[in-house]
Amino acid sequence: MHVRVYVTPKHGILDPQGVAVERSLPALGFDGVSGVRVGKFIELQIDLADGTPADQARSEIDEMCRKLLANPIIEDYTFTVDQA
Amino acid sequence: MHVRVYVTPKHGILDPQGVAVERSLPALGFDGVSGVRVGKFIELQIDLADGTPADQARSEIDEMCRKLLANPIIEDYTFTVDQA
Repeated sequence: MHVRVYVTPKHGILDPQGVAVERSLPALGFDGVSGVRVGKFIELQIDLADGTPADQARSEIDEMCRKLLANPIIEDYTFTVDQA
Repeated sequence: MHVRVYVTPKHGILDPQGVAVERSLPALGFDGVSGVRVGKFIELQIDLADGTPADQARSEIDEMCRKLLANPIIEDYTFTVDQA
């Protein structure tokens, strides 16, 4: 199954990349942009044993996010699973 | 409007972060994971003048991606626009 993970800095946590982007945009001629947050977008393919229940797959992916893909202290994450 | 930009390394371009993640997962007990690609997920709010046509908004966001948010030589990008 194809998994897409979206990691974003938690609200209230300083996001230096987002600040840098937001400050650069007016100089490039883009006005009216606010609230820029830069996070991570991770795609992966996971092959589980045939007949693995969907919630077991989701809980395994969730654990993968907590342990490696995101830092749950300063980041939020969501993911989508595509059976294809 | 709320914009979400997804930036991914182009196919065939080495993705060292993805390789690092893929190599770390088995040591954490996650098997069967392949094709890990790590990109960026950017959220921003853009306030355009009232009555700006949707395709003008999209072309402005596209230009923003090409000029600052992504590196079109080594990265692909897509974005979604939410009117809210």
